[in-house]
Amino acid sequence: MTMYDILTRKKQGLELSREEIRYFVSGYTEGSIPDYQAAAFTMAVCLCGMTDRETTDLTVAMAESGETADLSLFGELSVDKHSTGGVGDKTTLIVAPIVASLGAKVAKMSGRGLGHTGGTVDKLESFPGYDTALSPEAFREQVKKIGIAVIGQSGNFAPADKKLYALRDVTATVDSIPLITSSIMSKKLAAGTHSIVLDVKFGSGAFMTTPEAAEELAYGMVKIGTAAGRKVSALITNMDRPLGRAVGNILEVKEALEVLSGAGPDDLKTVCLALASEMVSHALGKSESEAAAMCNEALTSGKALEKFREWIGMQGGDTMYVDNPDAFPTARYSHDVLSDTDGYLTYMDTERIGTASVILGAGRATKTDEIDHAAGIIINKKTGDFVTRGEVIATLLTSNEETLAAAAKTYLGAIDVGPEPPRLEPLIYKTVRI
Amino acid sequence: MTMYDILTRKKQGLELSREEIRYFVSGYTEGSIPDYQAAAFTMAVCLCGMTDRETTDLTVAMAESGETADLSLFGELSVDKHSTGGVGDKTTLIVAPIVASLGAKVAKMSGRGLGHTGGTVDKLESFPGYDTALSPEAFREQVKKIGIAVIGQSGNFAPADKKLYALRDVTATVDSIPLITSSIMSKKLAAGTHSIVLDVKFGSGAFMTTPEAAEELAYGMVKIGTAAGRKVSALITNMDRPLGRAVGNILEVKEALEVLSGAGPDDLKTVCLALASEMVSHALGKSESEAAAMCNEALTSGKALEKFREWIGMQGGDTMYVDNPDAFPTARYSHDVLSDTDGYLTYMDTERIGTASVILGAGRATKTDEIDHAAGIIINKKTGDFVTRGEVIATLLTSNEETLAAAAKTYLGAIDVGPEPPRLEPLIYKTVRI
Repeated sequence: MTMYDILTRKKQGLELSREEIRYFVSGYTEGSIPDYQAAAFTMAVCLCGMTDRETTDLTVAMAESGETADLSLFGELSVDKHSTGGVGDKTTLIVAPIVASLGAKVAKMSGRGLGHTGGTVDKLESFPGYDTALSPEAFREQVKKIGIAVIGQSGNFAPADKKLYALRDVTATVDSIPLITSSIMSKKLAAGTHSIVLDVKFGSGAFMTTPEAAEELAYGMVKIGTAAGRKVSALITNMDRPLGRAVGNILEVKEALEVLSGAGPDDLKTVCLALASEMVSHALGKSESEAAAMCNEALTSGKALEKFREWIGMQGGDTMYVDNPDAFPTARYSHDVLSDTDGYLTYMDTERIGTASVILGAGRATKTDEIDHAAGIIINKKTGDFVTRGEVIATLLTSNEETLAAAAKTYLGAIDVGPEPPRLEPLIYKTVRI
Repeated sequence: MTMYDILTRKKQGLELSREEIRYFVSGYTEGSIPDYQAAAFTMAVCLCGMTDRETTDLTVAMAESGETADLSLFGELSVDKHSTGGVGDKTTLIVAPIVASLGAKVAKMSGRGLGHTGGTVDKLESFPGYDTALSPEAFREQVKKIGIAVIGQSGNFAPADKKLYALRDVTATVDSIPLITSSIMSKKLAAGTHSIVLDVKFGSGAFMTTPEAAEELAYGMVKIGTAAGRKVSALITNMDRPLGRAVGNILEVKEALEVLSGAGPDDLKTVCLALASEMVSHALGKSESEAAAMCNEALTSGKALEKFREWIGMQGGDTMYVDNPDAFPTARYSHDVLSDTDGYLTYMDTERIGTASVILGAGRATKTDEIDHAAGIIINKKTGDFVTRGEVIATLLTSNEETLAAAAKTYLGAIDVGPEPPRLEPLIYKTVRI
């Protein structure tokens, strides 16, 4: 078997065997297959596609290319959630404690923010002392004890994906369903949970702009995860506008605490309850309606908030902020973005709104950038709202006054106002189960 | 402009601008664009193709990526011939002196043999003393004086092609018409002649197995060469069987001398006269029939042989061998390959026959292999001939006795004998002019 023959076959549109795919993944991971052959491979996959069988084999091979978490002691109770990334997406902070409070086991590795999307680990670090780097043993021990632990990605999980993703990123081969699917699902398989609920975003702030494209990706991931022996389903949710009203780390933590306290924006709450129900349904074997009622009760009774406090405290974070969110530091400078016209807010370029938050210091343009935890945006008007000239549509917050002008310009450039109310895409487009 | 955007656009099937193509070629040549991006590019071109305009821009950019020969002093008289490579293809040795004897200027850089195809430079080195490495000045001076010089590829001609070809060779991206076209034509453009006649082979010993595929390639090259301002046409010729009866360097030189002396195999003579006529037609502005008559006369009158002697002598070769070909060294060992059955020779796997000659020492499996100039094959029976059991179908010649068994086995494996005479593809399928 040679990489040359594998490239030839893929280029001719033939289906690769499991052995060929494993040969590629192991050779590329260990370095015997060079970047240029892998680049030709990813381009050929972009243009010729892969069958479900090939994608499953690629996913499993990448999942097995490095360490894998052993969560077998939790049996079918372990459950993970994965979002394809968005702006203002703080659902993990709400969903994880709801689900854990009901007896499921949330053993979660989360990412950091990059580009216009935020990361859960950055948000959790808003709590002084929160330890995102537990050892595998401490991680398992905490999940065993209180049903929840969320740490940063550490260790050598799916190194094949790390290497391949970096290569795809510089060879314009990111947008391929089999490659996206295998990248996401290999990490989820390596993370070891029995069930996985995917939150696949669509819209102006998502990788997939249309609900149909998001559904295609979701369907692929659910199929591949299921074929690899896990319980997997997906929600297709709206990222045509930011989720909730807060964008930025401390701002989002505060909004999550509002929801956990029974308040908060409706859209955020709705998506969180849908995700939590799906996770509870998988992990505890409940019907959809039972699971929904349980999650709702966990929120209204305060059980979820209590679990949140327990989680943050157990992981070293200062729980004073859980009970008194106003104690969080606030940004030194703020600027109100005013509408320059009357009309309906017809469109939000959510990715650009994410970019505005990065300009303010809330995110990272490059991996080594420092985060300003207090920076971000409070959104007052969202798509469909009527605005009048001079009205505050958003408030920008930052520790670096010099960023305000550029962020305001970016924000204004990200919204359209028109005379007619826009057609709104649904908040939850579909649930994909097979 | 970034390589990422260029890859994205090509992947989407869009036409790249001249600037984008030049950006790629110069960046890859100088090293600022890495191999992995170039590999993704070649795979995208393989799968998405290129328009004629893109291919022309790619060809010209590669031609201009290094040195170019200045043959402007010869005006429209300079003419080159390029064969896509075959087995037993010694046409340059015959065509070049015919054409030069008629007043055209043959300033030719030729390659060495690799794999199953031979190279003109190796054949010329059969003449002791022949200098394949003239300086550009000496080269031009010789062409000016006697109308002909043939040297090896030297200097930094089309370095972009050298680099890209090596990459295509390991990324399974060789078989793309725009990439093949630009690779061949960039070198021909850099070589500087006003006219170019292409000999595009088809069949079992050629890169293109069918005449239709060869015609597609030929048509592409003619279009691109013409668009780049040269006079270009192509003959589509048969490589379903070796050309002539000799394969191997000294053996082929001797056969060329036979043709130049008015004898030799018909197929070889026919192809040589067709190529020479086309070249004369271009360089001297003659009609097809005039050019054909002139070339024929050059052969029968001995003018071409005289030019050959002058050429070899002027370039340092021992002309004693021109007048007395039997003086060439002969191989120490020989082996007759006998037919093991009665019937028609229905098929020759010409590439495998080339491989048999490489086994005998006549060619190179890798670039650094030494050549045994006396080694090779004399073919007694060709496709369409009737053979009887025990009859000699070929004689293998070598200085290394140990190679005979493997070469004989390879040769026998390369031919089919059957009860019915085969349908023969034409020797010259078509002339492509635009």
